[in-house]
Amino acid sequence: MALIVHKYGGTSMGSTDRIRNVAKRVAKWVRAGHQMVVVPSAMSGETNRLLGLAKELSPTSVTPAVMREMDAIAATGEQVSVGLLAIALQAEGMEAVSYAGWQVPVATDSSFTKARIESIDDVRVRADLAAGKVVVITGFQGIDPEGHVTTLGRGGSDTSAVAIAAAMKAAECLIYTDVDGVYTTDPRVVPEARRLSTITFEEMLEMASLGSKILQIRSVEFAGKYRVPLRVLSSFTPWDIDITEEAASGTLITFEQEDENMEQAVVSGIAFNRDEAKVTLLGVPDKPGIAFQILGPVAEANIDIDVIIQNVSHDGKTDFSFTVHRNDYARTMELLQNTVGPATNASKVMGDPKICKVSIVGIGMRSHVGVASKMFRALSEEGINIQMISTSEIKTSVVIDEKYMELAVRALHKAFDLDQEQAATA
Amino acid sequence: MALIVHKYGGTSMGSTDRIRNVAKRVAKWVRAGHQMVVVPSAMSGETNRLLGLAKELSPTSVTPAVMREMDAIAATGEQVSVGLLAIALQAEGMEAVSYAGWQVPVATDSSFTKARIESIDDVRVRADLAAGKVVVITGFQGIDPEGHVTTLGRGGSDTSAVAIAAAMKAAECLIYTDVDGVYTTDPRVVPEARRLSTITFEEMLEMASLGSKILQIRSVEFAGKYRVPLRVLSSFTPWDIDITEEAASGTLITFEQEDENMEQAVVSGIAFNRDEAKVTLLGVPDKPGIAFQILGPVAEANIDIDVIIQNVSHDGKTDFSFTVHRNDYARTMELLQNTVGPATNASKVMGDPKICKVSIVGIGMRSHVGVASKMFRALSEEGINIQMISTSEIKTSVVIDEKYMELAVRALHKAFDLDQEQAATA
Repeated sequence: MALIVHKYGGTSMGSTDRIRNVAKRVAKWVRAGHQMVVVPSAMSGETNRLLGLAKELSPTSVTPAVMREMDAIAATGEQVSVGLLAIALQAEGMEAVSYAGWQVPVATDSSFTKARIESIDDVRVRADLAAGKVVVITGFQGIDPEGHVTTLGRGGSDTSAVAIAAAMKAAECLIYTDVDGVYTTDPRVVPEARRLSTITFEEMLEMASLGSKILQIRSVEFAGKYRVPLRVLSSFTPWDIDITEEAASGTLITFEQEDENMEQAVVSGIAFNRDEAKVTLLGVPDKPGIAFQILGPVAEANIDIDVIIQNVSHDGKTDFSFTVHRNDYARTMELLQNTVGPATNASKVMGDPKICKVSIVGIGMRSHVGVASKMFRALSEEGINIQMISTSEIKTSVVIDEKYMELAVRALHKAFDLDQEQAATA
Repeated sequence: MALIVHKYGGTSMGSTDRIRNVAKRVAKWVRAGHQMVVVPSAMSGETNRLLGLAKELSPTSVTPAVMREMDAIAATGEQVSVGLLAIALQAEGMEAVSYAGWQVPVATDSSFTKARIESIDDVRVRADLAAGKVVVITGFQGIDPEGHVTTLGRGGSDTSAVAIAAAMKAAECLIYTDVDGVYTTDPRVVPEARRLSTITFEEMLEMASLGSKILQIRSVEFAGKYRVPLRVLSSFTPWDIDITEEAASGTLITFEQEDENMEQAVVSGIAFNRDEAKVTLLGVPDKPGIAFQILGPVAEANIDIDVIIQNVSHDGKTDFSFTVHRNDYARTMELLQNTVGPATNASKVMGDPKICKVSIVGIGMRSHVGVASKMFRALSEEGINIQMISTSEIKTSVVIDEKYMELAVRALHKAFDLDQEQAATA
């Protein structure tokens, strides 16, 4: 008998029929001898409906007082879900009880609309489990030190589920979603993309932050920090699928250390992102403080920066490039042309919104030389010009012309043998 | 400066436009110098939607565990309302904060779906008011000693508002609803029906329990018990109506004692109810315990009884009549014919579902003889046969053939001069 946490997304909770199926699936796990905690999202569309109402009434400036109310309103979506699922479980003959975040309680800080979980009290939940009950807990929300309802931001239910699994020392946290696991890359771009049976936390973090929108990135960080075994699997399999088969399906996110002896693929996956734009300041003086002089005003304007490149200088001048979200491109260019460019004596401000970022991700990269050069060769063989390069321990990213994105992803997927069942080492 | 509680029904909260109007009205009261606590219902239709979802998933037997979840689900309707109204108030330039029942807290017993308020902690609300905030509190709900969410049953927001007004020692509790006050009788039956500017608690209780569905009866009991001045008024007046005019509109429910010196109308209103059915056992032995022998099995079958009549006996036999809700008529007749009739040796069981009850209500009745006879004369002049009579301190009810209901109500309304601005004393 193990303690297991299940998390179901909004689509899985989208109608009473679907909720009934979730209840049947959970009941199957109970009958197999497990203690179950379930964290469902709001019914699909509900959070948007609630926040839509709030926005219709909001004053022009969204103060913390307004955000406090938005959180209280949005949190009700999950409060309805947990009640409905508890009732559906009771109809399946289970004993079940639901709790809102404040009832557990799930303690957070006071950052309304993007609160962080600080602690979870497991006393009440543990007592219910010991009494043979299925415990259904709201995702996405908690309570701050002053007793206000807070929410964790979009996708926060993943984080809730992992945090609850960590607090309860659950054997595994299963995230049921609309894909059946983590793929080597997006199957819509590369039909040969293969589902990974395991991926390390570090790789998953890179994949998540690079645009594979399967899990909220904070949930992965949480799982890594508290060593919660995390599995992504499909909620679209029939609820009465064999439980051993179900337990082994999807992608298990593992701890690197545990897998040191395993044959490790060099590259686990290819991530990509076409939401970025590139800007460059040419011929800025290469002197201390120049980077801050450029990026300070950008950060002050609340523009998030991703890749930053500064190459070696010649003649006391250097070129400075960075990427921003494409929605911020116009604002960034204006800022550079009118303020930052003149202030730094840049010879020219250039920009290009039609770029994309493609990355190879793999824990094996650390100990294998030549991975980056293999990437660059594969791109060069396709005639794709690399505009920017950025590397970390376990990923290498390139910025290229947007129009080559699919071509680049397919070429890299093939170059690293990701379509093979056991990806070869370099 | 006075502390005022406003309560708004679901229709007043039915859309963002209407919520905006509620906010403007409340803001007007704040600007007139009042401290404001507002108790809104769920948006119209929302409670039914939520309970409908719950019922779709419920097991066949509705256990306390199911009811607990239904309460948690239904309570979210008001939680959305208070958040939206707080935001709308902020958009009007007010400082405003919303609380769910558990946050105040509003402490109740654990009778899910029909909980009773036990106490209200006013510390937090008082601090907010002192800080210049409008406080918006959910109606309909509270928290039980184990930390479960409870609801007070349909119409419970009226009771919440009155209980909060009592706990805060508010100067007045204004219930904004879809009628503009309490009338001498239903204007759909008697076009000359007149709005009462005041009515006593006792009269209001009789009017409410007799079928004038303006206020939840428990809210009136609460107001009487804690001496909360309560006013029923229309939410359909323009929000920018002159505040003195608004404050004096509707019907004020007063304490009898305070009005002892006022010229008191003998009869304040005519109530009626066609939801009842009459049953009679003829020729039962007139012996101790017979009433219990008849009504015990009826109560055991969970059938509510209203009027009970037992007349003096002759030859050791008596006739025993009572009324039940029309929906229970068939069950009641079956029970009497098959069980109670034979057991009590009744000579005959009779019944009639086509009856109605018409009542005159008035605190002045106590000290004025001849009120009942005036009622009977008015009915007799219209040729209406009286089947049953039942009286209390401040009301006289008759059961008559259903087809005479409108005629009887109109005749009585005229006989007691209720269409006159100052109803005359008898």
